[in-house]
Amino acid sequence: MGKQRQGQLHLGAFLYFTGHHHAGWRHPSSGVEQMFDIRNYTRMAQTAEKGKFDMIFFADLLHLIYPSHAAAGMMDPIALLSALSMVTEKIGLTATMSTTYNEPYNTARKFATLDHISGGRAGWNIVTSQTDAEANNYGRDKHPEHGLRYEMAQEFVDVVTELWDSWDDDALVMDRASGQFADPAKLRQSDFKGQWYASKGPLNVPRPPQGYPVLIQAGSSGPGQDFAARIGEVIFTAQPSLASAQAFYKSVKAKLAEYGRDENSLKIMPGLSPIIGSTEEEARRRERELLDLIRPEEAVGFLSSMLQYDLSGYPVDEQLPDIPDPVGASNGMKSRVQLIMDLARNERLSVLELGRRLLGARGHLQFVGTPEQLADLIEKWFDSYGCDGFNIMPPVLPGNLDEFVDQVVPILQKRGLFREEYEGSTLREHLGLGRPSVGHFKNHKLQTQ
Amino acid sequence: MGKQRQGQLHLGAFLYFTGHHHAGWRHPSSGVEQMFDIRNYTRMAQTAEKGKFDMIFFADLLHLIYPSHAAAGMMDPIALLSALSMVTEKIGLTATMSTTYNEPYNTARKFATLDHISGGRAGWNIVTSQTDAEANNYGRDKHPEHGLRYEMAQEFVDVVTELWDSWDDDALVMDRASGQFADPAKLRQSDFKGQWYASKGPLNVPRPPQGYPVLIQAGSSGPGQDFAARIGEVIFTAQPSLASAQAFYKSVKAKLAEYGRDENSLKIMPGLSPIIGSTEEEARRRERELLDLIRPEEAVGFLSSMLQYDLSGYPVDEQLPDIPDPVGASNGMKSRVQLIMDLARNERLSVLELGRRLLGARGHLQFVGTPEQLADLIEKWFDSYGCDGFNIMPPVLPGNLDEFVDQVVPILQKRGLFREEYEGSTLREHLGLGRPSVGHFKNHKLQTQ
Repeated sequence: MGKQRQGQLHLGAFLYFTGHHHAGWRHPSSGVEQMFDIRNYTRMAQTAEKGKFDMIFFADLLHLIYPSHAAAGMMDPIALLSALSMVTEKIGLTATMSTTYNEPYNTARKFATLDHISGGRAGWNIVTSQTDAEANNYGRDKHPEHGLRYEMAQEFVDVVTELWDSWDDDALVMDRASGQFADPAKLRQSDFKGQWYASKGPLNVPRPPQGYPVLIQAGSSGPGQDFAARIGEVIFTAQPSLASAQAFYKSVKAKLAEYGRDENSLKIMPGLSPIIGSTEEEARRRERELLDLIRPEEAVGFLSSMLQYDLSGYPVDEQLPDIPDPVGASNGMKSRVQLIMDLARNERLSVLELGRRLLGARGHLQFVGTPEQLADLIEKWFDSYGCDGFNIMPPVLPGNLDEFVDQVVPILQKRGLFREEYEGSTLREHLGLGRPSVGHFKNHKLQTQ
Repeated sequence: MGKQRQGQLHLGAFLYFTGHHHAGWRHPSSGVEQMFDIRNYTRMAQTAEKGKFDMIFFADLLHLIYPSHAAAGMMDPIALLSALSMVTEKIGLTATMSTTYNEPYNTARKFATLDHISGGRAGWNIVTSQTDAEANNYGRDKHPEHGLRYEMAQEFVDVVTELWDSWDDDALVMDRASGQFADPAKLRQSDFKGQWYASKGPLNVPRPPQGYPVLIQAGSSGPGQDFAARIGEVIFTAQPSLASAQAFYKSVKAKLAEYGRDENSLKIMPGLSPIIGSTEEEARRRERELLDLIRPEEAVGFLSSMLQYDLSGYPVDEQLPDIPDPVGASNGMKSRVQLIMDLARNERLSVLELGRRLLGARGHLQFVGTPEQLADLIEKWFDSYGCDGFNIMPPVLPGNLDEFVDQVVPILQKRGLFREEYEGSTLREHLGLGRPSVGHFKNHKLQTQ
């Protein structure tokens, strides 16, 4: 497998409700009956902690997708993570919060609160909302354009970090005798007035234990990479092959220097959706079982929406036709279309199979094989600078997470790739990230601002 | 004490961080050192549950008040309540969320999530933000005027309840065999388009277990009373005397009929801040001890801000002068000024003592005496239709909550006024409130809409 890298492999448990596979909820090992019962999430978080994962992660969308499907239900991630902070001890607690439909002051406060109540385990995946269906839930017709959304998100993060910085770490005095609770000289107004956002401050919650909760970013487009290189500390990305992952890894790490950042200050974690079996044959059988649960009209509909191109009249058993240049498509997932077309060509997939594959793993790396083979893949990607770790996306939850923890983690530990115990108590410590001091980001503001 | 009323006394535990008394945090029994540690709140919530309280309640303000004082720190209430749902079984979990600086879709979703994860124990105190300091944290200079804010809040609640109603109670099918997760015929878009808010829906969380989380309201002004009479199920109010409480009770209950509502569908719970001692003398001594911890400049500053009238040059030992008509003051707490002036006149309080009294109890009813005397007061107010219960505001937390539960609750139970065990498992059941069906509020929309 080549010479082993310095440093630690990182693992996230991406808890996508009943699982990442579109038909996963129909599987006997899914927790669909309990998907609005916190005990289902307690069990998963505790399993991930037993497996010494760096963090659990909840995605978030601000509209109802697939009314006929389990992803219809998405409880509020901050509420879920706050609850789970009470039944876990060490594991990081991370979630998406959109900059498009939340106020910076509320966002700063919610993540500061989660960081306080969890003892420094919070992480924020910074996203911009992408779909018109979300805009419609907030009284708007459309979203701003792709590039503009990132500019707005950058300003949003500037406000939030300045609010976190509005208390010095030692601002709390709490002296009963003198009656001084906090030292006013160690509190400051941010007086932020940007192009889109303004907030006077100070925040009404002291500086988070981690300084800032860990800042996560999940866009792989050009503006997304720039954004991550400036402020990201973890990047979740969809990489379907080692070659694309290595190119992405190199590109993003190189950009860090432009902002005066060390390359270890950003961890790159592609999504990985594994289907394992005791033999390759068993794993393939389990994959087929799940794929067959996806109805053809759902597979083709999903592929059409991913490509922003209607394939409903196209023969499902033929190969994907050439898809028109997506540049003209507004607010599209631009960087994904080329990856999807490459996948279809390389593996000669029919429209139906491509749709099922994508809907199953939602554009992320899929693996089908034995626990040993999966450990090989993880080791290879890690050792050859394809990633700093993976965000594990079990196809069926909680069943496949149990299997990963019981069957794959021990192999990674035996190979010396992964921790056997938590060494620190904060998410920053798990990830090997430094604690930002007050004013941390003032040093790497965008040149354009 | 007069003939006992039918029905049940209701109690809320208003957990205002280190206590409601301005100087409470300086007291040895305050939890100030742990005020950003969830264990402090766990202890208080479990104590209130041991005392069979209907609910705990967190206030919320969207700015930092008193940097020198413990109320500076206000963690996010939804995060706190979500965490506390994991360490309690029965008690209601309620908090303020402002309609001014939150989106209706997010608000509907957060409370629906809390209701799901707590098994039907959530309640939302609907407020409009009042201070320019809050506006400044959200990039605005000022708030809308008082009356307009209520009109906007009413529309906000209409959006939120329609989003809760966007799933029928039996919309979830979860049939693995057919692949039907939810019945699309039992989901609906709200397509709400109001004057200030719009949301298409459906919500991405199923209808809350309680139908709607309990709707709480805390304004006592004219528009506040109308708002409560239309949509409130609990009203928190500041009533400094039994006579004013009875007048308020009668007025609000009479208004319910205008909206076709039963008088039991709204519970009136004045704030009550008790200082108890084993003798009256001990209680007085404890009161004096707390008052003396309030520095004169803080007392006079607070009184000035409550009255929106600068008293800083006024002799602190003289009686309160006549305060100019507050009608001209924009965005003021209009209904409170008259109550404060009446209190000063009736009890012949100096400016300093008035300021200390108000800052101590923040305008709510104060009680100083023995547990028996406190039980007498509670019984008298309840029996003579001054209230349906009280929102208990301990001056020092957690110390005074422990005392109330250990010393006062048993007396109320012995007198048959208060439950010895929870009979139901939802907050609606504790409060004796019906479960709203889909479309509940369409029957009592404001005439003006």
